[in-house]
Amino acid sequence: MTLLEQSIQHITQPDQEIKSAALKRLANQARPRGSLGRLEPAAARLASICGRLDVKLDRKTIVTCAGDHGVVEEGVSLFPSEVTAQMVYNFVQGGASINVLAAHAGARVRVADLGVSHDFDPGLDILHKKIRKGTANMATGPAMTREEAAASVEAGIGIANQLADSPGLDLLGTGDMGIGNTTASSAIIAVYSGLPLKELVGPGTGLDEQGLDLKARVIKRALDLNRPDPADPMGVLARVGGLEIGGLAGLVIGAAARQIPVVCDGLISTAGALIACELCPAAGQYIFAGHRSRETGHEYMLRHLGLTPLLDLEMRLGEGTGAALAMHILDACTRILADIKTFEEVGIENAHEG
Amino acid sequence: MTLLEQSIQHITQPDQEIKSAALKRLANQARPRGSLGRLEPAAARLASICGRLDVKLDRKTIVTCAGDHGVVEEGVSLFPSEVTAQMVYNFVQGGASINVLAAHAGARVRVADLGVSHDFDPGLDILHKKIRKGTANMATGPAMTREEAAASVEAGIGIANQLADSPGLDLLGTGDMGIGNTTASSAIIAVYSGLPLKELVGPGTGLDEQGLDLKARVIKRALDLNRPDPADPMGVLARVGGLEIGGLAGLVIGAAARQIPVVCDGLISTAGALIACELCPAAGQYIFAGHRSRETGHEYMLRHLGLTPLLDLEMRLGEGTGAALAMHILDACTRILADIKTFEEVGIENAHEG
Repeated sequence: MTLLEQSIQHITQPDQEIKSAALKRLANQARPRGSLGRLEPAAARLASICGRLDVKLDRKTIVTCAGDHGVVEEGVSLFPSEVTAQMVYNFVQGGASINVLAAHAGARVRVADLGVSHDFDPGLDILHKKIRKGTANMATGPAMTREEAAASVEAGIGIANQLADSPGLDLLGTGDMGIGNTTASSAIIAVYSGLPLKELVGPGTGLDEQGLDLKARVIKRALDLNRPDPADPMGVLARVGGLEIGGLAGLVIGAAARQIPVVCDGLISTAGALIACELCPAAGQYIFAGHRSRETGHEYMLRHLGLTPLLDLEMRLGEGTGAALAMHILDACTRILADIKTFEEVGIENAHEG
Repeated sequence: MTLLEQSIQHITQPDQEIKSAALKRLANQARPRGSLGRLEPAAARLASICGRLDVKLDRKTIVTCAGDHGVVEEGVSLFPSEVTAQMVYNFVQGGASINVLAAHAGARVRVADLGVSHDFDPGLDILHKKIRKGTANMATGPAMTREEAAASVEAGIGIANQLADSPGLDLLGTGDMGIGNTTASSAIIAVYSGLPLKELVGPGTGLDEQGLDLKARVIKRALDLNRPDPADPMGVLARVGGLEIGGLAGLVIGAAARQIPVVCDGLISTAGALIACELCPAAGQYIFAGHRSRETGHEYMLRHLGLTPLLDLEMRLGEGTGAALAMHILDACTRILADIKTFEEVGIENAHEG
């Protein structure tokens, strides 16, 4: 049995008894019923995943998966592919957006090279999981082989397992870096949504109208040529996906298999989560949507996955920044459930039971 | 000159040069331009208020203003007035929602009694600012005198000054506790919006359809009887407002006069902010909207004040809970501005200038 098959077998239904107990406690707290809005179902879901009412999400890691995209040669991004590697160095040096927001969230950042078109020194403090140096140009053929796609997913699973073993992991955040990866993600969304590309394609790093037109046409060419089948998610990943997107799918599956909640960032992380849920629908119960990205197509995926994002700050940065900001909200969910006293505990009559 | 007049005189325009410098730095950071969405203008505004690019919001306090409402005798709330005092004790004991979320935000909670219908022991660890024991029933006459309304606003200013002097204050959060206060707040919104009460009135602690009808009719009676004039905000506060709402208005004016940013909670705190801005429009530049409450009418006030809420989690609890959760986002704003490196600092070519 492959690591992927094994991991999928370990993804169980979160504890429904704990979930009921959590919802009951929330309903009896000394405040108007339901008044903490979406924090309440999120708190109950965290409790059910972690199997306890007093959840502590102390050990948080954000894994930023990096990879390059052959399709960049079609002119779909404002930045050249070299920026992917340059940003990996920026992450390692600690001055990037994700470093700043992860530190603020009390989370570690681990950068994983799934497929950057650059030779990193083996001593560089990143997770070295390179499958190949960037995908092939999906506008002229498949992005990668099915074996490479599976290897990228298993690399993600391996990272989740490695973090869960040491230093331990209570909450996993996912993030991405890869010039061209909104193009690959939009192609994946097009496969599953059937929506016209005009509606799905967003500006990525900052394309103008003309750039958007080109991006939509390139994706259409890639889809017409590769004919990905939505019933075969690994095939979709191989034909029009990305190495870091495979890694992101693997992170979700790996965390879910270890009963660890995952908070996803925006468009690319959610594309990875979508592939994970197509491979194993039960994984969806372990996922929290960190935020609603401004990128077109993200909203479709969130609906498809049945997720409501915690934040909506019109961000579209990636790297895991939306996941990092949302971690504070998830921490708040654990605190409201465990720490707010009930009507009975504080001796106030509950009008909701009057 | 009264304390209110003095304070209004001290409300200056935040530093526009610092704001420009902040926006310039944000635009040059090594990430797609504008990719941190609404964090960016918020960061620039915080910098302009605090007069520096490296803002530290270390000393945070949430002031939860409490008061009772005579109009509760009309049956507009699911809970009896006694619950206001009971919740004040709950806040002091530390088991309420605001205690839990303020602790999570790294903020102190101070409870201020502006007008609770209960005699608290003078030794109780709250801010003793009682103007009177609850308002009169606004459905049968003015809620309070103009002098009492002004005293409640000045009590709020006094609290902001007191906190700014000792222990010092970098960020003030506002919150409320008062059975019946969504009724008073909705009356204030009706005065300024001219919108039909049917659209404005929300369920408060959990009214059903019939309760909502009654609440709308009671507010209509209060407005018809008292005829508050929107051009006279102090008169509006006196006729259909609340003592804690006056305190909340004073907190905003007091903080703005000391150049301290204020993050408002939901419906009631925003009604206080609305009164503050009607008394002194310049105060609006110091206000951040913590979240979008589910209470009908809140959206109208936010638009009226030109504010976009930081969070939208369908909360409707009050106490300052939305302000507390939003403090983490404001902290994040200060960090992104100060800590994310620019393209130049990390040696990556800025495609936005290509």
